[in-house]
Amino acid sequence: MRIYDVITKKKHGEALTEQEIRFFVSEYTAGNIPDYQVSSLLMAICLKGMNDEETYILTDAIARSGDSVDLSRFGALTADKHSTGGVGDKTTLIVAPLAAALGCKVAKMSGRGLGHTGGTVDKLESFPGYRVALSPEEFISQVEKIGIAVIGQSGNLAPADKKLYALRDVTATVDSIPLITSSIMGKKLAAGSHSIVLDVKCGSGAFLKTPEDAEILAKNMVRIGRMCGRNTMALITNMDVPLGYAVGNSLEVKEAIATLKGEGPKDLTEICLALASSMAHLALGISFDEAEKRARELLYSGAALRKFKEWICAQGADPDYVDNTQMFKGSLYEVPVYATEQGYVAGMDAEAIGVAAMVLGAGRRTKDDVIDHAAGIVLKKRHGDAVKPNDVLAILYTDKKDSIADAEKIFRGAIRFSLDAVAEEKIIYAKVTGA
Amino acid sequence: MRIYDVITKKKHGEALTEQEIRFFVSEYTAGNIPDYQVSSLLMAICLKGMNDEETYILTDAIARSGDSVDLSRFGALTADKHSTGGVGDKTTLIVAPLAAALGCKVAKMSGRGLGHTGGTVDKLESFPGYRVALSPEEFISQVEKIGIAVIGQSGNLAPADKKLYALRDVTATVDSIPLITSSIMGKKLAAGSHSIVLDVKCGSGAFLKTPEDAEILAKNMVRIGRMCGRNTMALITNMDVPLGYAVGNSLEVKEAIATLKGEGPKDLTEICLALASSMAHLALGISFDEAEKRARELLYSGAALRKFKEWICAQGADPDYVDNTQMFKGSLYEVPVYATEQGYVAGMDAEAIGVAAMVLGAGRRTKDDVIDHAAGIVLKKRHGDAVKPNDVLAILYTDKKDSIADAEKIFRGAIRFSLDAVAEEKIIYAKVTGA
Repeated sequence: MRIYDVITKKKHGEALTEQEIRFFVSEYTAGNIPDYQVSSLLMAICLKGMNDEETYILTDAIARSGDSVDLSRFGALTADKHSTGGVGDKTTLIVAPLAAALGCKVAKMSGRGLGHTGGTVDKLESFPGYRVALSPEEFISQVEKIGIAVIGQSGNLAPADKKLYALRDVTATVDSIPLITSSIMGKKLAAGSHSIVLDVKCGSGAFLKTPEDAEILAKNMVRIGRMCGRNTMALITNMDVPLGYAVGNSLEVKEAIATLKGEGPKDLTEICLALASSMAHLALGISFDEAEKRARELLYSGAALRKFKEWICAQGADPDYVDNTQMFKGSLYEVPVYATEQGYVAGMDAEAIGVAAMVLGAGRRTKDDVIDHAAGIVLKKRHGDAVKPNDVLAILYTDKKDSIADAEKIFRGAIRFSLDAVAEEKIIYAKVTGA
Repeated sequence: MRIYDVITKKKHGEALTEQEIRFFVSEYTAGNIPDYQVSSLLMAICLKGMNDEETYILTDAIARSGDSVDLSRFGALTADKHSTGGVGDKTTLIVAPLAAALGCKVAKMSGRGLGHTGGTVDKLESFPGYRVALSPEEFISQVEKIGIAVIGQSGNLAPADKKLYALRDVTATVDSIPLITSSIMGKKLAAGSHSIVLDVKCGSGAFLKTPEDAEILAKNMVRIGRMCGRNTMALITNMDVPLGYAVGNSLEVKEAIATLKGEGPKDLTEICLALASSMAHLALGISFDEAEKRARELLYSGAALRKFKEWICAQGADPDYVDNTQMFKGSLYEVPVYATEQGYVAGMDAEAIGVAAMVLGAGRRTKDDVIDHAAGIVLKKRHGDAVKPNDVLAILYTDKKDSIADAEKIFRGAIRFSLDAVAEEKIIYAKVTGA
């Protein structure tokens, strides 16, 4: 088999066979096919698409390209959650202990952040002592004992995706439904959970700009997940504005703790309840409504917060931080940004706000940058709020005095005002449960 | 400017700007853009196309990517000819001296062959002593004195095309009208002639299989050539069968000499008259019919043959070879292939016949193979001829005894017989003179 013929076939819009797809994935991963041939194939896939059968095989080939986590001892109880990425997305910190409190087994691997979106692992490292690396035995045993463990991606999981994603990232071949699906689902398959809940975000702060585009991707991922033998569903959620008020690692952790205390922002609370209920619905075989009723009880009774403390304590953090969030390291500078006009907040460019937080030290521009866990932005006004001159719009947190003027400028550019009152935005657009 | 944005734009089917195209060509040639990004862009161009303005700029950028030949001292008299490649294509050997005899200035650079098609330079090297490398001064001065010089490609002519073509060849991005046009016309522009006649071949032995496809390419090249300020026209010619009877270097030279003596095969003679007349029509500003009338006179009067001798003599070959073609080195083995059935020759796969000749030693499988100038095939029966058992179909020439059985098998597989008489094939399908 020659990769040249595989490229030619896809260029002509034909479906690739199972052998052709597995050949391309395994030989590329092994370093036997050069980047310049694969990027040509990726562009042909971008422009000519892949049918479900092809996407399923590509996903399976990526999942099998390296190690996989064996969670079979937990039967059907394991549930994972994946977000397509957004600004201020701290849902894993809330959803994972809530799902565990519901009875799911949450054996989760999370990533680090790059650019304007943060990673769950970075957020957890706001707790001094939190161990993001556990041995496979520790990982499984912790899930067995307390129902939850969250670690950094370890081992050689889906190496095909690492290589393919790095190439897509520099060859303008990211925005392809079959390529996104196989990348996300390939990793989730290798991570081993039986049930998978996808949070597909759309809006200015997300990769997909409209609910319609998000629905196409969500339906594709759910179909492929089911073809791969996993219980899969998706929520389509709003990322026109950042989720909650906090953007930045320990700032987000504090907001997550408040949410687990039943005192969180409404949008964040609703999304987390829906995600955890979806996981319980799939993993425990109870109705979504029943799952949501139980989830609400566990959140407002403090049971989810207790599970959170149990979890971070098991991974080496001090649970006193949860009761007394003043213990988190603060910032040298806390700078309010004041409104200069009268009106309503009509738009917040979530991506630009993420960039402003990165400038303050909350994110990495390159893989080697060091994160300041305390840095970031806490919004004081949100979409729809009335504003008058000298109201505080947000507070910027940083140790880098030099960054403040830049960050403020970017932040101000992200906010749009209107003289008229604006309608409330939807938080959850749709639930995608089947093909 | 970022190549990523250029790729994205073309992926979305948008036209690239002049700056974007010149940026991509110059930075890729300079080694500042990696292959894997350019192959992604090439696939997007294959699938989304380029308009005339884009193709024109791409052609111009390729032409200006290295050295160019200055033929301005010859005014509008210079005329070049390019064939899209075929089996047994010895037209340059006949057309170049014929056009020079007509009064054109033929300052030509030709290539070597690879695979199943031979190169003009290889054919000329059948003459012991023929110098394919002249200094720029010798080259110009010979054209000045006798109106013709044919050398190998020298210098740093259109280096962008060399890099792009090598990449297209391994990434399945060859068959794109704008990419083919810019590659051929970019080189022709750099080679400096004011008039350009294109021989676009179609059929089983050519890259383009139908006259319709060939016409699309021909019209595109003529339009772009004119946009670049060159007198350009094209002939669409038949390559369903090899041109003439001989395939192989000195075998083709002998057939070319016979044609210049007015004793050549009809198809070859007609194509050569049409090509040389087209060159004279464009370069001398006379009507095509007038040019063809003069060309026919020069061919049958022996004037073209005298120009041929003058030319090869000026480049170091012994003109006695022309009068006495027995002087060319022969082959150790001359093996007739006999017919086994009765009927008519209904099909000859020109590409397969080219491969059979290569196996006998006439061509290179890889760049480093050494050619046997005497090796090849001379057909004794052609398309439409009646055949009975034990008729000689062809004679194979080689020094490699081991290759005979393989070559005969490939040759036999290339011939298709019919019980019914078959219609004569057209030689020239169309003349493309303008947009």
